[in-house]
Formats: sequence, structure tokens, C-alpha cells
Amino acid sequence: MVTSSCFVDGKPQAALALNDRGLNYGHGVFETMRLCAAQLPLWHYHRERLSQGAARLGIALDLPRLQVYLQQALEAFPADGMVKLLLTAGLGPRGYRQQGQAASYVLQYFPLPSPPLEPAALCLQLCQYALPHNARLAGIKHLNRLDQVLAAAELDEGVDGLLLDVEGHVVEALSSNIFLFDGHNWLTPELTLCGVAGVMRRLLCEEIIPALGQRVLVEPIALSELINAQEVFVCNSVRGIQPVSELVGRGDWSAASSRLPESQTQEVMTHLARVYPCFAA
Amino acid sequence: MVTSSCFVDGKPQAALALNDRGLNYGHGVFETMRLCAAQLPLWHYHRERLSQGAARLGIALDLPRLQVYLQQALEAFPADGMVKLLLTAGLGPRGYRQQGQAASYVLQYFPLPSPPLEPAALCLQLCQYALPHNARLAGIKHLNRLDQVLAAAELDEGVDGLLLDVEGHVVEALSSNIFLFDGHNWLTPELTLCGVAGVMRRLLCEEIIPALGQRVLVEPIALSELINAQEVFVCNSVRGIQPVSELVGRGDWSAASSRLPESQTQEVMTHLARVYPCFAA
Repeated sequence: MVTSSCFVDGKPQAALALNDRGLNYGHGVFETMRLCAAQLPLWHYHRERLSQGAARLGIALDLPRLQVYLQQALEAFPADGMVKLLLTAGLGPRGYRQQGQAASYVLQYFPLPSPPLEPAALCLQLCQYALPHNARLAGIKHLNRLDQVLAAAELDEGVDGLLLDVEGHVVEALSSNIFLFDGHNWLTPELTLCGVAGVMRRLLCEEIIPALGQRVLVEPIALSELINAQEVFVCNSVRGIQPVSELVGRGDWSAASSRLPESQTQEVMTHLARVYPCFAA
Repeated sequence: MVTSSCFVDGKPQAALALNDRGLNYGHGVFETMRLCAAQLPLWHYHRERLSQGAARLGIALDLPRLQVYLQQALEAFPADGMVKLLLTAGLGPRGYRQQGQAASYVLQYFPLPSPPLEPAALCLQLCQYALPHNARLAGIKHLNRLDQVLAAAELDEGVDGLLLDVEGHVVEALSSNIFLFDGHNWLTPELTLCGVAGVMRRLLCEEIIPALGQRVLVEPIALSELINAQEVFVCNSVRGIQPVSELVGRGDWSAASSRLPESQTQEVMTHLARVYPCFAA
């Protein structure tokens, strides 16, 4: 990794001090953002979630300062790829109590994952690890991610993980949110007790799907509802939308319409690509 | 912090690479150990908990390598104080899946907290934040510590926090375990669904209290049981035992016997200091 591909508090730097609360306690939040023509097209959504996460965790986010660091980084990074932003509660003495520290701002460049944005047939595997409920941490993208690490450890090669909560409700995929079309409506899980409320999920719920004259029902979703769905896709703010072809051993949407040009999924993908061309397949 | 007070993988270094899984996901465990005459008197217990945590989180702990790093650090550090050991899942590409990385070993020296080991009257405040259940993470000292950060944010100055779980059972203090004497027996909470199983807790349960002809009942403990206890103390492997004088607004043990020479608590403290003199008051 070259030095100019990462910045800490505005300085080219590839390491973070050992006394940072991000490392010691996971006291921080992060955003993984699509970078396109030296712009972050979904920055306004990322900024809002970041602010919400910082407020929940008591992190003193200085937005004007972050904007300066971000501008500097975007000038140094390649024009296309992704930017990972880590905001931590900053350097401090040992101990769980925060003492009014200034936050740490980490910006890193990564190339896009390959295959870049091809809407390949995605295969999901049901994880046995169940997400615990915690309303205080649900929705935000904090740095305590052992749930995802333990779930990921179960997975076979080449599949993504489907996560349920401790009550057996569908929550999300390993690093994306999930939508299903039941023949009438789009549905996506409510994320008030666990899960990460993705930026692409919000964009689809608030802008893209309503513009098609449809709306998204945000509610608890049973595994059986998912299995019986006509179409299923996952989404995140780096890859956009990916149709799901299969839930290993339980659900098969490969013959379904989600990959056909006239499918509901394709209609959403097409409109997303119209409004945000970087997410064109 | 001077360079020789911290080592990363055997090198004097005060920072950790940005792509370490400890920072990005809290994928790691830690031990905070009493350092006494250039020795870690409870190392055998710390090593066992560290190994157990590493196994649960899929971290490739190389114990002989760690022993070399530890030896080197103990030669560089002052003779007395504390050593914080962080073991993370190491450097890796973005993504929750682990790819067989070598672990990272971080060793840091800190002076003892002041007042050093004075058995001052400790005051506990009940935290509203409740610990969620998660059997996969319970007991080990992992780096996902937002529970403790959020609980600590509620506390007034000069008090320690008492943590209950989502069912209202007593679990632990913010960075120590809790014991109570009900007039007949010592009791300490079962930690199979949440909490950190402390090294001092284990030492007291397995060695110190049995040597006094008593045993410790490890079981779920209701808040009312704690409030009605005759004596209460908290313990950790840095401070040893601290008698508790009060649970703000709910329990008062200041007139009770825990601080008197003939109290059960004093008997345990005396025997601990006899076996491990560094914990003498």
C-alpha cells in the first residue's frame, strides 16, 4: 500500500496510534463509499449515517474538518474505486470512559472489488450464527464487527452469507442489505434491533423505488417469506444491486424473473443506473 | 509514550497498520496484566484465557512467538506496573472473511492506576445500559467493547458501573468481576451469556477462596440478592480485590463488615496477598 492511498487526520500515514479507541474498544464507525470520477456520489447519505453513528457513540465528529481531509484525499487518490472512511473516538488513556477526545479521521483508497459491478448470479448461504438484538447499536456501521467475522467463518467459497437474528428473522447479507419482491410489493427487513442500515438501502427506499411508482415495506421478514419471494436482490453502496439466484438448499430464484430484462429487479437496476450512472452494470 | 513502552510483533512501535483486523472489526482479544518485579505473576491464567479467546475467534495464536515477544518487552519495560497485550487476527485485505493471516502481537507498558492498590471504599452506580446475550462471545476478553463504552458514558465521576444483562441479572462491574457474601457462601455471576470471565475471578474461585475452606457458587444472581448481601467486592487482575461500600441509591455496605479486619472480604484479601504479595493492600 503506498502512502498516498491512506491518510490519518490529513497526514499520509498507514498506521494508527496504539492508544486509539477505535483499536482498543471498536469505538468508532466507518463508511465504505463508491468513488467515481473523483466524486463520492452518495456522500450526502454517508455523511448522515456517519453523523448519526457518531452521535450514538459520543464521538465528536467535526464535519468541516472531515470535509477538508476528504477533499485532500480525493485529490490524492485515483479517480475511481472506493474510499473507506474510519471515524474513531480518538486517542486517549486506558479505560472505557471517554474524556472528550478529538476524533481520529482515517481515509483509505481501495480499487473496486473484482468482478467490478457485474450483476452476477449471487448465491447465499444461511449462517447458523444469529445476530443478537441491541437497539442501541442497531442500524449504525460501528467497528464492533465480530458478529460478521463469526458468521463469515462458516461460509463456503464463492457464496455470500445470509444472516438471521436470534428470533429467526431475516436481517441482511454479510455486507449488504436484502430486498425481496413478493409479487406485489418490495420488502426489506426492519433494522431497529440489529443489522446495518445501508446507504444503498436508503437510496432505494427513498428515491429509486418510489420513482417507479412503488414503495418498499420495511418490516420483520420471516425466512419463509424470503424463500417464497418471486425475486430477491442484495445491495450496497459499492456494488449497487446484485440479483440473488439461490439460497443454498432452501431457495432457488435462478429460473425466476429477477435476471430477465422485464423483471422487477432489472427495472430497479435500470433506474438506479439512470440516476447514478456509476452503478450501471 | 516512549517507543520502548510498546512493541508490535517484537518491534518498538507505537502504531498499528490500518489494515489490521483488530482496528477494522475488533477481531482480537486482550489481556491487562499486573507487572511485578519484572514478572507477570498471573501469566498462566492470562495465557489460558488468551488461548481460549483466540480459538473462539479463529486467531492463529503462536504461543512460542508470543513468549519471545513478551520476554523482550519485560526486559525493556519498567519492573512494576501493568502490561496490556493485544492479540489481533492480523493484517488482511478488506472483508469479514479471514484468509489465514498471521496474528499481530501488541505489548504496551502502563504505570499502575492511582491510587495504586488501596482498598478504598468503592461506590457502584447501576448502569441502565443492559448487556445483550451472546454465548459465542461471552467470557472472553475480545475487542468489541462498545457495551462497556456505552455503559461508562452514563457514569458520574468517581464511581464504577454495575452492569446487568437484558434479563436484569447482575453480570459484572465495568472492568472487574463482582463477588458477594450472603452470610453463608460466596457467590459470583455465571458468565455463559455475557460478561468477561476475569483472571482474578478465576484465581479466587479456584485457589484463594477454596484454600480458606469455602467455595464460590457460580450462578445467576438477581439484583435483589446483591442488595441483600452482607459483603460485596469487585476484583480484577490489576487492582486485586476492592471492597464495595455502596450501590448508589440501592445498597449500602459501608457499615457492614467488609472493611473490618474480621470480615470475610478481608480474609480473602489477606490470603490473596499471602499467595501473591503484589496484591497486598
